[in-house]
Amino acid sequence: MAKKPLIPRRSPCPLNASVEMLGDRWSLLILRDMMVWGFQTFKEFLGSHERIATNILADRLRRLEKSGIIASKPDPSDGRKQIYVLTAKGIDLAPVLAEMVLWAARHEKTGNQQLIRSLKGNKEQVIAHIRKTWAEQQNPPRKP
Amino acid sequence: MAKKPLIPRRSPCPLNASVEMLGDRWSLLILRDMMVWGFQTFKEFLGSHERIATNILADRLRRLEKSGIIASKPDPSDGRKQIYVLTAKGIDLAPVLAEMVLWAARHEKTGNQQLIRSLKGNKEQVIAHIRKTWAEQQNPPRKP
Repeated sequence: MAKKPLIPRRSPCPLNASVEMLGDRWSLLILRDMMVWGFQTFKEFLGSHERIATNILADRLRRLEKSGIIASKPDPSDGRKQIYVLTAKGIDLAPVLAEMVLWAARHEKTGNQQLIRSLKGNKEQVIAHIRKTWAEQQNPPRKP
Repeated sequence: MAKKPLIPRRSPCPLNASVEMLGDRWSLLILRDMMVWGFQTFKEFLGSHERIATNILADRLRRLEKSGIIASKPDPSDGRKQIYVLTAKGIDLAPVLAEMVLWAARHEKTGNQQLIRSLKGNKEQVIAHIRKTWAEQQNPPRKP
């Protein structure tokens, strides 16, 4: 659903709307960790390769939740803890991240060649797989 | 060509490489101004809707040039001035920006509905048109 932002934006441009929500390196890395690695907890994000600082992580999780890109809920395995999950709006960012990976792979020396090969081979299929994994997390099959 | 970065990156992840170069709202808006509106001068960027500050603009142009995404050269109509143009690496970002526009259009209230309609109708054709316009700027036809 198209919504008005809580804070007035600097312009009506759709790219500006995106960068006001995403124009920060850490937000995009958190979304990668959720999409590609299935991370859900504060501790998992903290342990990521790029070593995000605790205060930045807390701030970015709050902003992403305010923008409706992620949601927090009690951890089913320990109700005192929070987990973070992508919303439908969040998982819709998979094509943006895929294009960023492909661009970097084309112009920079990077790791994760397996993901790059998959994306180069069949981008749509990789994105469909990411969406499917996400959908299954939303509605886990009932235990018999 | 894949190159090693001048400054060591925080991780070998290809998305991290992208966000270390682009993870800032102003850089992406400058690239939009070059790709979509054909802006080339400092004055044009300054006049853009989002009202970038002079010092931030100067800094981001310098960074984008360092990353090989844009290049500066003397203005053909006034050699004392500089103009900024997208490199091949820069124009290769068109799919990233296109996906960001489409995502925002799906989830937010935004302007520029004409661009959104074109992108929804035929993304590949819009990107091909942006590339063609760029290529023509690189090698302008000789005057008879």
